[in-house]
Amino acid sequence: MTTHHVRPDRYHHTLGSHRPLAHIASGDTVITTTVDAAGRDADGVAVTPRGNPMTGPFFVAGARPGDTLVVELEQLEPNRATGFSGWTIAPNVLEPQHVAQLPVAPAGWATWQIDRAAGVAQCRPEAGGKRISVPLRPMLGCFGVAPARGQAISTATSGEHGGNMDYNGFVAGTRVAFPVFCDGALFFLGDGHAAQGDGEIVGTGIEISLDVRFTVHVVPGKTIGWPRGETADAIFTVGNARPLDQCVQHATSEMLAWLTSEYRLTPLEACMLLGQAARYDLGNIFDPAYTMVCRLARAALTGCR
Amino acid sequence: MTTHHVRPDRYHHTLGSHRPLAHIASGDTVITTTVDAAGRDADGVAVTPRGNPMTGPFFVAGARPGDTLVVELEQLEPNRATGFSGWTIAPNVLEPQHVAQLPVAPAGWATWQIDRAAGVAQCRPEAGGKRISVPLRPMLGCFGVAPARGQAISTATSGEHGGNMDYNGFVAGTRVAFPVFCDGALFFLGDGHAAQGDGEIVGTGIEISLDVRFTVHVVPGKTIGWPRGETADAIFTVGNARPLDQCVQHATSEMLAWLTSEYRLTPLEACMLLGQAARYDLGNIFDPAYTMVCRLARAALTGCR
Amino acid sequence: MTTHHVRPDRYHHTLGSHRPLAHIASGDTVITTTVDAAGRDADGVAVTPRGNPMTGPFFVAGARPGDTLVVELEQLEPNRATGFSGWTIAPNVLEPQHVAQLPVAPAGWATWQIDRAAGVAQCRPEAGGKRISVPLRPMLGCFGVAPARGQAISTATSGEHGGNMDYNGFVAGTRVAFPVFCDGALFFLGDGHAAQGDGEIVGTGIEISLDVRFTVHVVPGKTIGWPRGETADAIFTVGNARPLDQCVQHATSEMLAWLTSEYRLTPLEACMLLGQAARYDLGNIFDPAYTMVCRLARAALTGCR
Amino acid sequence: MTTHHVRPDRYHHTLGSHRPLAHIASGDTVITTTVDAAGRDADGVAVTPRGNPMTGPFFVAGARPGDTLVVELEQLEPNRATGFSGWTIAPNVLEPQHVAQLPVAPAGWATWQIDRAAGVAQCRPEAGGKRISVPLRPMLGCFGVAPARGQAISTATSGEHGGNMDYNGFVAGTRVAFPVFCDGALFFLGDGHAAQGDGEIVGTGIEISLDVRFTVHVVPGKTIGWPRGETADAIFTVGNARPLDQCVQHATSEMLAWLTSEYRLTPLEACMLLGQAARYDLGNIFDPAYTMVCRLARAALTGCR
Repeated sequence: MTTHHVRPDRYHHTLGSHRPLAHIASGDTVITTTVDAAGRDADGVAVTPRGNPMTGPFFVAGARPGDTLVVELEQLEPNRATGFSGWTIAPNVLEPQHVAQLPVAPAGWATWQIDRAAGVAQCRPEAGGKRISVPLRPMLGCFGVAPARGQAISTATSGEHGGNMDYNGFVAGTRVAFPVFCDGALFFLGDGHAAQGDGEIVGTGIEISLDVRFTVHVVPGKTIGWPRGETADAIFTVGNARPLDQCVQHATSEMLAWLTSEYRLTPLEACMLLGQAARYDLGNIFDPAYTMVCRLARAALTGCR
Repeated sequence: MTTHHVRPDRYHHTLGSHRPLAHIASGDTVITTTVDAAGRDADGVAVTPRGNPMTGPFFVAGARPGDTLVVELEQLEPNRATGFSGWTIAPNVLEPQHVAQLPVAPAGWATWQIDRAAGVAQCRPEAGGKRISVPLRPMLGCFGVAPARGQAISTATSGEHGGNMDYNGFVAGTRVAFPVFCDGALFFLGDGHAAQGDGEIVGTGIEISLDVRFTVHVVPGKTIGWPRGETADAIFTVGNARPLDQCVQHATSEMLAWLTSEYRLTPLEACMLLGQAARYDLGNIFDPAYTMVCRLARAALTGCR
Repeated sequence: MTTHHVRPDRYHHTLGSHRPLAHIASGDTVITTTVDAAGRDADGVAVTPRGNPMTGPFFVAGARPGDTLVVELEQLEPNRATGFSGWTIAPNVLEPQHVAQLPVAPAGWATWQIDRAAGVAQCRPEAGGKRISVPLRPMLGCFGVAPARGQAISTATSGEHGGNMDYNGFVAGTRVAFPVFCDGALFFLGDGHAAQGDGEIVGTGIEISLDVRFTVHVVPGKTIGWPRGETADAIFTVGNARPLDQCVQHATSEMLAWLTSEYRLTPLEACMLLGQAARYDLGNIFDPAYTMVCRLARAALTGCR
Repeated sequence: MTTHHVRPDRYHHTLGSHRPLAHIASGDTVITTTVDAAGRDADGVAVTPRGNPMTGPFFVAGARPGDTLVVELEQLEPNRATGFSGWTIAPNVLEPQHVAQLPVAPAGWATWQIDRAAGVAQCRPEAGGKRISVPLRPMLGCFGVAPARGQAISTATSGEHGGNMDYNGFVAGTRVAFPVFCDGALFFLGDGHAAQGDGEIVGTGIEISLDVRFTVHVVPGKTIGWPRGETADAIFTVGNARPLDQCVQHATSEMLAWLTSEYRLTPLEACMLLGQAARYDLGNIFDPAYTMVCRLARAALTGCR
């Protein structure tokens, strides 16, 4: 149960079998930092190229293919005063014939002021125009493990191994489980957002560097198919694919497997509970793979007896 | 501002230019009933064939093509003690290779007890098995207006005119706006659900007959593209299509149009607000057209100044 | 075996249960005309509003729900010297980020010269620019029967009943089968194209009025799910939906049903033959429902023994 | 202009920056072999694990990111007497409600006899049943270059770099161009099919090991977005994604770019030519990324002047 203070000295733009940044054990806690999607750190200094650079990988002793790696996100704290975002809604999110009417985005990125005391991020897109204010809700956009088959997959996209899911439910207090595909699992994290709407429809959240604390657990011999999550109120499963329909298929099949294997529901009971109680969240509809989440309130589960 | 008590003597299985059930005026209130999706009334008697039979149409005096019809859903009250649902998750909602593992559904429908005092619906799918309990949250599955071009469109599906959207946000207290495509708008409603999970993934909610009260308003000369809704806390837009990606396109384009035309946001401000504050709900992923909703909290709007 | 010379005096913009233009019998031949998609006849005169106006319906005596209506397309002859088309590729057919780079389309439609002697259609899009020349291959864009459930469905879209499939394989010499949903089948046809690329990606073929001759047959008691076609060389099935993936699902399931019911193949043989011999054509990727076709060469069938 | 005889001593299951199997130069020809999708060679011996093992990579001297690598497929010759295939149509290719009716596939793979003299492959799926016979048309299922961003991507899928496209147009006599993402391009090839239907709907072609001859050319400074191909009769572009709609978007945008940059067509001329002359082929609708091809006959191009 060691706590590791890890200062990253390099970053990765793929999730793959890279040389570990640190070796940790099941039960250990890590305190570290992530740079923003553009490679800038707490001082706003670009320390690595853009494109969701990852802190890691963390080699978790004992994790083997077929196991599950559980990561408790304990702290996700923006560590500087400004974040950035895109300006306009991505063309694939609008009716095709509507795309030509999109406003022209100003050059560069929009800058948001992060007011941690007030708990809001604020931005005035146009001089003399309105100021937009949204509540802070820091989250991880991209995190996961080295993928199957010795692949190295860009941090632009996602899959069974996690990756760039851009789901705004990945906040502090969430426990996330990933399938393990290689020895040590090789956990990566980065791409913090101070806040993000559903879908990441402007192509970014409010991108920011983070101070992070997380704890890992290996569950030997437990095999899952897609990332799973737990909060105080709900359990959820994550599907990453295109189109959104396929995300729903992955997330729902994974939830069905979970309910019948660990919640003592028969397949028919699980179907009927999900039919009337499942919720779905839209993670992102921007990245090469989209993300949807199937979520079930713990209250719905405790109501089954 | 008349209140009409309308007792339906016929039902429709398409939304189209059918003979009006009643003529009403802008500002009028209607108190009526709807049968369940199988055509059964408050006494459980099948009074019309199955397939989402509609009460209506209501001819709203003065409504003309290009106007908007606003319908306030004031009361949606299950009027009998049992509802029914499907048993198993629809094959299109699961990974294709997972479909063959689905449990075999028992014959007929599952029966749910509607306990209005306790505010729950309950069902025991298997003798000796668990009892499933979900909170009552009555909603309209299918409602809308006669579609464009003189069409008559099945109540199994949906479009710009509304129809079988199966969105569990259509509860009492919601104000819903539809584009008007023909004189009198011709408003239909039915397919009540005592509750429904997101996506209607077992192919039904908890299907039930309802006592209904609603009030209509015509907004002359205001033209909208897709159904819109308002609650105390949020505004939302509805996209009906396949795949879900296209639903998102319709709902997002409609929301963008709404924000820039009525909320004094520039297109760039609207994009940036939606980017960090939009929420998306999954209506249904079962019907011939799927439904997704773009929702924005009123708090997000009032934060813009 | 009567031959009916039918001169249309009205047109329809939905496929539905409209008053018959003519009553015919199984085995009868019809000689008639269709106006172009804009409602213009052989003289270029607009005789009805735009939007794929249909000639028909033809009530086929004896056709009942559950039967199949076979239509032999014997002659499809452009009957004037010019056709028209759209200018630019539809936004939904291009990468979303590519849409903004599309050229601005000139006002109105592009005009094509129909040179029947040379067998080509020609158009010079820009003064001083190149002349484009494509072979004539006249086809029907929209045809089919009244749909199920008493619906009246716009001639902009398609479904199990046929409709606006915009498949360039619907040329003279093709025999097309439709499911019958109401008494008399109620056959409609129109939307002729002098030629069309796969996908109808500019939103039109070369739109033209036609002289048409066709013969109908009722196959009592034979029920099919989707339109089917036969030529001298191949058999094919048609799926209409969105996205294209779903079109493929419909067309393939229908082909599998056909092979096992009428070609004495076991399900496993049919799967294996299709796996190595099926071809797919893209009808349209522009209309509200897209169209894909599963096609099998007769040679592939005769090779099975 | 060297001809290299290369005997592979290792294989790769990802396309990535692996140690070159051989160094070659622009203009060089390679004579080599590929194992089948299951890792079996000309003698039917499994020499590497299953999953589309690749021969390569070939480091092409002088190729740099931003260049184009052209590969002429000169010979693709099955080098043994049997191939194998899947038995049943993949669940994602059929209507979801149809999936449960699929026949149960026998264990293992189906075996096809490759009769090169007669030019056919034959298989009898069921004892006493019909023999299926399809013409030989040898093709490469999976080939391409190391992808962008230092990724290593599974040979199960495809992207801008090529990969497992499973398009039955990749036959001898075809010239294929790939974008170059890293120094030397790093060309891989494998997954030969003796024949394959459109879509690879049973999950395989007729899988076989091949004798291969190909010649490479580097086109310095020419940057393309997606694989392109040329035959004696046509040019084509390839889009790899999900759903098929997105494949069409990539292939069509790439074709538009090609026509306007190298065929002296204005954007408007290119749109109008494609609108009435483009053809689309379905590569695969089975792999993690599907494939569609936009194809244009050379005759259509020469008709533009």
